[in-house]
Amino acid sequence: MRLKALKKNLVKKGKLPYLITDLVNIRYCTGFSGSYGCLLVDGERTYFISDSRYEEYARSLLGDDVTFVLQKKSLPEALKKLLGGIGAQRLNLEEHNLPLSMFMQLKKELPDTELLPAGDEVNLLRMCKDDSEIELIRKAVRIADDCFRHILRIIKPGVREWDIYVEIDYFYKKNGCRRTSFDSIVASGKSSSMPHYSTSMTKRVNSGDIVMIDMGCEYEGYNSDLTRTVFVNSVDAEFKNIYTTVREAQERALSVIRPGISAGSCDGTARRIIKDAGYGGAFGHSLGHGVGLEVHELPALKSGGTAKLKKNMVITVEPGIYLPEKGGVRIEDMVLVTDNGVEILTESPKELFIL
Amino acid sequence: MRLKALKKNLVKKGKLPYLITDLVNIRYCTGFSGSYGCLLVDGERTYFISDSRYEEYARSLLGDDVTFVLQKKSLPEALKKLLGGIGAQRLNLEEHNLPLSMFMQLKKELPDTELLPAGDEVNLLRMCKDDSEIELIRKAVRIADDCFRHILRIIKPGVREWDIYVEIDYFYKKNGCRRTSFDSIVASGKSSSMPHYSTSMTKRVNSGDIVMIDMGCEYEGYNSDLTRTVFVNSVDAEFKNIYTTVREAQERALSVIRPGISAGSCDGTARRIIKDAGYGGAFGHSLGHGVGLEVHELPALKSGGTAKLKKNMVITVEPGIYLPEKGGVRIEDMVLVTDNGVEILTESPKELFIL
Repeated sequence: MRLKALKKNLVKKGKLPYLITDLVNIRYCTGFSGSYGCLLVDGERTYFISDSRYEEYARSLLGDDVTFVLQKKSLPEALKKLLGGIGAQRLNLEEHNLPLSMFMQLKKELPDTELLPAGDEVNLLRMCKDDSEIELIRKAVRIADDCFRHILRIIKPGVREWDIYVEIDYFYKKNGCRRTSFDSIVASGKSSSMPHYSTSMTKRVNSGDIVMIDMGCEYEGYNSDLTRTVFVNSVDAEFKNIYTTVREAQERALSVIRPGISAGSCDGTARRIIKDAGYGGAFGHSLGHGVGLEVHELPALKSGGTAKLKKNMVITVEPGIYLPEKGGVRIEDMVLVTDNGVEILTESPKELFIL
Repeated sequence: MRLKALKKNLVKKGKLPYLITDLVNIRYCTGFSGSYGCLLVDGERTYFISDSRYEEYARSLLGDDVTFVLQKKSLPEALKKLLGGIGAQRLNLEEHNLPLSMFMQLKKELPDTELLPAGDEVNLLRMCKDDSEIELIRKAVRIADDCFRHILRIIKPGVREWDIYVEIDYFYKKNGCRRTSFDSIVASGKSSSMPHYSTSMTKRVNSGDIVMIDMGCEYEGYNSDLTRTVFVNSVDAEFKNIYTTVREAQERALSVIRPGISAGSCDGTARRIIKDAGYGGAFGHSLGHGVGLEVHELPALKSGGTAKLKKNMVITVEPGIYLPEKGGVRIEDMVLVTDNGVEILTESPKELFIL
C-alpha cells in the first residue's frame, strides 16, 4: 500500500528510479528494521539490497512486489548491476541523509548514470498516518501517560533528577518499549529554563522547585512525546501566571488546528498569546513537530511554516515560556488532525499541579 | 591538546581550513556535547559555530584558542562570512557524515570556495586514547562487568529474554550510565545463532538453552562492549567443543595483539583456529573494532585489514561460531594495546558456565 502510494507520486513527478537510503524510510515502505540495506524503487519492480546477514529475514518480510538482491561486494557495485539490468540512465536520490562519501562512491562506480538529488518523497508521505500507524502511536502515547502518572508519586524534595530519569526509563522498558524516544529531560528549579537541558545525576529536587519533565517512548517503532511541568510544595504568583499563559497558548493553538491551516499560523496563534502576556522573547522554540517512526519528523510547526496541515497528521503542540535563571514551563500534547479539528491523544492532566 | 595534535596533522597534510561536522568529533576536540554545531579548524584559530541555544554553554566550555561564532541564519551563511574573513579559497570537509543536502547548500552559498573531501582526520586521531579517555573506558567496562555478574542471578528457565534486557538497562542507568551503548542483545536457544538478533519480548529461556548476551554502556560519553555466552542446566558435546574453540580463538588472538601487528593478521589468527576446528563458514563477522566515544569506531579488526595496531588503542576481541537452527557462541572482551601486548580490560569470567 505504502510502496504503491510512493510509486504513484514518483511516477507523477518523473522521479523513477528512486533510491531510498534512509533506514526509517525503508522500514516505512517494507517493514524491514535491520541496520543495513537500501531500496531501489522503479516503475516495474522494487529491489531491496542488503548483505547476507539480513537475507533470510528480509526474504521472509518482503512482499511479492519487492525482489531481494544480495550485495556481495559493495552497495555501488550491486546498484551498478541492477541499474544496468533495468537500463536506467539516471538515479534519483534522497539527499537529506546520503553521506557525501557514499555519493562520491556512487559517482565513481556509476560514471554514466546521472545522479539526481530528488527530495524527501517518503518523508512527505509519512506525514499522514494510516490506521495501523495511528493504533501504534495511540499505544505509545498511552504508555507515556501511564508513566507520567507513575512518576508523579516519586517527585518530592530530596529525590535526584536522575532517580526520576531512571524510573521513567525502567517503566517504559517494563511496559514493552524497546527504547525511549530520546534521553528524558528531568529539569528542576532554574534548570527548567533550558529547553535542551541534560538531566543531572546529582541535582536534587527542592521544595519550591519547578519540575519540568519531557519524556517519550518507542512502541513497535512508533514514538510518543509528552511534557508536563509541576511544582513542588508551592508556586509563586509569577509562575502561576506563566503556567496559565502557556496553557492558554496551547488551548488556543489546539482550537485552530484543522486540515488546511498552515503550520506557521498554528505557531503564530500560540506565540501571540505568549507575546500579549508580556513574554514575547521567552518562547524560543517552535510550537511542535510531527511524530511517527521518528519522534521529530515532518511537518515542522514553526514560525512562517507554509506546510498545510492534513487529516491524519500526528503532531505535538508544545508552547513554553523560559526565564533564564528563574525557570520555565512547557506543556506538550500529541494530537491527531481529524476531518475538522483535532483529537488530543495525550490524556495526562494539565491542571496546575502542586505536589 | 587534542586540537593541537589535529592541527599538526592537518598542517602536515595541507588540509587547512578543515570543517568538522561530525558531532562526536566535535565533542572529542572541544568537549561540546550538544546536538548542533560545527568546528572550523584553521592555522591561526579555531571557530565553533552554533546557534543561540548553545551560546552560553559553548562559551563556558571552549578554551582560549577557540572562538564562538553565533549562527544567525544558516550554517552556510555563517561559514561564508567566516571564510571571507579568513580569506580562504578552499574548505576541507569530513565526507563520511556530511549529508549530500548540506554539501549542496555549501556549494550554492560558497560558489568561489573549493570544497574538498579530506578524509576522517579526527576519527584517525581518536583511535589512540589518552589517559583521561582510558580512565572513562575502564569505568564503563567495570560497570558492564558488574552488570553481567548481577544478571547471572536471574538467568533461569522461565525468565523472558526481555526481563533480562530490562534488568541490564536498569542496572546501567542506576549506576550512572546515561544510555546503553546499543540495544542489548539477549538471545536464547536457537536465536543465539543470529549475531544481529533483536531481543524478544515474549520468548522465555528454557532448560538446555544457550543464552548469549551482548551488552554495553556509555559512561560520561565513553562506551563498553561485552559478550558472554552461558548455558542453562546443561550443554551438549558439540557446543562444549564450540565454546572451547571460540575461547581458544580469542586467547590466540589476544596473544598476538601488540603495536605494529596488522588488524587483518589478528583477525586471521582467530579465524584460523575456528577453521581448523571445522567451523570455517560459521564465523561470519569480523574479530573486533575500536571503542571510545562511539561503541564502533576505528580500527576495524577485519579480514584483510591493513591498519596497524598502536599503543593505547582500545579494541574488542570477539570471535564467534554460529550454527543456523542450532545456536551460537561469542566471547567478547575489551582490551587496551600496551607497549608490548595487551591489557585485558574486561574482567568477567570466561569459563564455561552451566547455570
